[in-house]
Amino acid sequence: MTPPRSNEKRPLAALLVPDLLELLEESPESVGPQTEEMHPADLADVAEAMPEEMVRAFLFALPKERAAEVLEYLDEELRTQFLEELTAGEAALIVAEMTPDERADALDELDEETADDILSELGAEAQAETERLLEYDPYTAGGLMTTEFVSVGESLTVEEALRSVRTMARAGRREAMYTIYTTDMNGRLRGVLSLRELLAAPEGARMSELAWSDVVSVVPNTLQEEVSQVTSNYDLVALPVVDAEGRLLGVVTVDDVIDVIQEEQTEDVQKMGGMEALEEPYMQIGLWQNVRKRAGWLSVLALSEMLTASAMAHYEGEIAKAALLAQFIPLVMSSGGNSGSQATSLIIRAMALGEVRVRDWYKVVMRELPAGIILGMILGTLAVTRILIWHGLGLYDYGPHFGLIAATIGLTLIGIVTFGSLTGSMLPFILKRLGFDPASASAPFVATLVDVTGISIYFSVAYLVLSDSLLK
Amino acid sequence: MTPPRSNEKRPLAALLVPDLLELLEESPESVGPQTEEMHPADLADVAEAMPEEMVRAFLFALPKERAAEVLEYLDEELRTQFLEELTAGEAALIVAEMTPDERADALDELDEETADDILSELGAEAQAETERLLEYDPYTAGGLMTTEFVSVGESLTVEEALRSVRTMARAGRREAMYTIYTTDMNGRLRGVLSLRELLAAPEGARMSELAWSDVVSVVPNTLQEEVSQVTSNYDLVALPVVDAEGRLLGVVTVDDVIDVIQEEQTEDVQKMGGMEALEEPYMQIGLWQNVRKRAGWLSVLALSEMLTASAMAHYEGEIAKAALLAQFIPLVMSSGGNSGSQATSLIIRAMALGEVRVRDWYKVVMRELPAGIILGMILGTLAVTRILIWHGLGLYDYGPHFGLIAATIGLTLIGIVTFGSLTGSMLPFILKRLGFDPASASAPFVATLVDVTGISIYFSVAYLVLSDSLLK
Repeated sequence: MTPPRSNEKRPLAALLVPDLLELLEESPESVGPQTEEMHPADLADVAEAMPEEMVRAFLFALPKERAAEVLEYLDEELRTQFLEELTAGEAALIVAEMTPDERADALDELDEETADDILSELGAEAQAETERLLEYDPYTAGGLMTTEFVSVGESLTVEEALRSVRTMARAGRREAMYTIYTTDMNGRLRGVLSLRELLAAPEGARMSELAWSDVVSVVPNTLQEEVSQVTSNYDLVALPVVDAEGRLLGVVTVDDVIDVIQEEQTEDVQKMGGMEALEEPYMQIGLWQNVRKRAGWLSVLALSEMLTASAMAHYEGEIAKAALLAQFIPLVMSSGGNSGSQATSLIIRAMALGEVRVRDWYKVVMRELPAGIILGMILGTLAVTRILIWHGLGLYDYGPHFGLIAATIGLTLIGIVTFGSLTGSMLPFILKRLGFDPASASAPFVATLVDVTGISIYFSVAYLVLSDSLLK
Repeated sequence: MTPPRSNEKRPLAALLVPDLLELLEESPESVGPQTEEMHPADLADVAEAMPEEMVRAFLFALPKERAAEVLEYLDEELRTQFLEELTAGEAALIVAEMTPDERADALDELDEETADDILSELGAEAQAETERLLEYDPYTAGGLMTTEFVSVGESLTVEEALRSVRTMARAGRREAMYTIYTTDMNGRLRGVLSLRELLAAPEGARMSELAWSDVVSVVPNTLQEEVSQVTSNYDLVALPVVDAEGRLLGVVTVDDVIDVIQEEQTEDVQKMGGMEALEEPYMQIGLWQNVRKRAGWLSVLALSEMLTASAMAHYEGEIAKAALLAQFIPLVMSSGGNSGSQATSLIIRAMALGEVRVRDWYKVVMRELPAGIILGMILGTLAVTRILIWHGLGLYDYGPHFGLIAATIGLTLIGIVTFGSLTGSMLPFILKRLGFDPASASAPFVATLVDVTGISIYFSVAYLVLSDSLLK
């Protein structure tokens, strides 16, 4: 087995598994050297592709530090299972090598007793650091940050700072070291500069002159959504986290921010689909979680939709007189729902990106009102044309009042599409104002809201237009 | 006006505008020094908040390099407008200071003639480089990459490499320099190491021994979706782009990857809402684009939904005999659509994250089939209960066959929710297989598909259950 070479198409993890299993059997001591050049993310893929009972032997055949790196990329469930199978001592040897933030995340997923056992086997410093990190809410800057950052006193010269950075780098800190922070005598964050800027700096200059004093930072309880917005707005590779006194506590690195962005987006998409967000990837959840996360909203929506039955019971006389009006119920309702779904998706996304704020609701109304009327007129024209063609060609006989029936459907569509666009665009504002996640304004939610009202719009228009003819 | 201090809540850009305008009037030469410590992203916010006719004066009051940085963060429309107002010579002075990838992006947005005029005013080297970058499709690795990367010969020692890196850093390259690439004599990419690893390396070691030979790289026409997946999977801060011979052409930096992820997500959300993706932020598009991007799908969906009218025309006899069956049309249809919308959102997102592949379709069927049946039974039970309670309490008289009517609705819901879940989950697979974007399987699209079939399921069940009673 040769490790993959640069610039070659990366091998599919599964293809490596047979070779690795053979090597594990024959000479486990050469697994480490043989896989030395592979990226830990690829080794994690390999571990995920091998039979579960071999994962342990594989990870133990690697040097501890490598095993820890692989664990950082391993599927959460498999990682938890692996750590729980080990004795606390064995587990501690490996997690000790993880970066502080990944270590805290890994322990956070274990049951509390196991986590405590492993913690107590860690060295005093690592233990205290991990416990401190575990106290933060995992969905905040504190829960995301690592404590392995590089800071130097602002009074140092460039040469002193560079020497200090090299010492820290050699001490084996593994986390990113792309940015250097300067602090005052009390540990308060004062400035920032990139490692490149440090290397480019003229000799003899002081750090306090070189560093940028306008440092973007957050506090530990800043929500992860804001962490990702700030990082993305300022193109940062690392975002410092400071306490109330401005002391540097840790750093959120960009790779964790990307994970947050993906996670938040998954949640939004699932909520927009009309369900609760899943806690794990779709292929890993059981039938029970799959049903549970969906049944709630489905039931609420179905119960609300039953109001349409009540609304229609109200119009039973009209339906009995003109059964053909029922034919257009699906068209009318779905057009309202679809235009609402478009509007709500636009606004939810614009809100997630910070393009639209709650105070902009009126501007949105002034955009959706004309858009809804025009869209309604387009759909209305289509429907009227369809009815006239069908009637004209004799495909269906709408009776002597076919013109009025066409007018009813056309006018209803204008009304309902305008109503759908307005409702769909305002719902995220209302939810946000009430303290809910605007992404809960799912397409099904909006469609249901519009359906119930839509039936009334439809039969009111029908009553107005047809009361002297079909509905007399 | 004092520049914002570290650790303070960042000022709202708008608050700075009056001070800056005053300063621009009284002593434009002090605008540069006064804003020197501010992040260019903040200066761009300030520029966007000031009256349009002042933007030019403001940017010209800044040193050229700062103005170029601000341009990189400026809203695209405003940037294009600004550049088009300048003479080609003036514009060239500023864009020359931009990073090569940002410069190419900025010129790509201008009309071709203006872009060519500016290009011809650039120095020969910058001109050739920009023209090369402009040839790549902007949605590929080639379109995203910058040509400002740091590579050193693999035969160099650590000291030689570090000296070369410092020289390059001092030469004023502004782009990120977090990773050092090693190349062979023909410029082929051979290895990678982080700047931290270079600093930590023992003196005298050769780069060829130090660098990781397993370099993750892409080619210029790799699509941006894959660029972002690779960057996120391997936690990279920079992804090298190589040609067919393995020669290093450029580097995609993580900040551009984050932009890609956000963009792709916005597109997905808009498509899932049942419309075409917008080209600009929602608040910036005009009424015409707003309508155009939505009318297409709305019309297609409405035309398809008209098939339900044809389907129902087919059952007109049944509706006339039992007008109360029409009451449940909205409930039945929306339940099918909602369960389909849930399933489709789950699968689209799982596909976007690479968790589900086309070949997994059968596994998904085996998950959605039982989930759909259970969800259908839950909704069926709710509906039956509702009918029996209403009938029992005398809120509505379903007639002597109320039990059979309840059974019809209950059975229909089981059938339609199962059908909806299966259709919704399979549609993204089918679209992907056909070469379309799976995210086009919007909630409205699925709902419409399910509606048309749903009507048939409903009336078939009704016919089976009620043919001896209500529909005799």
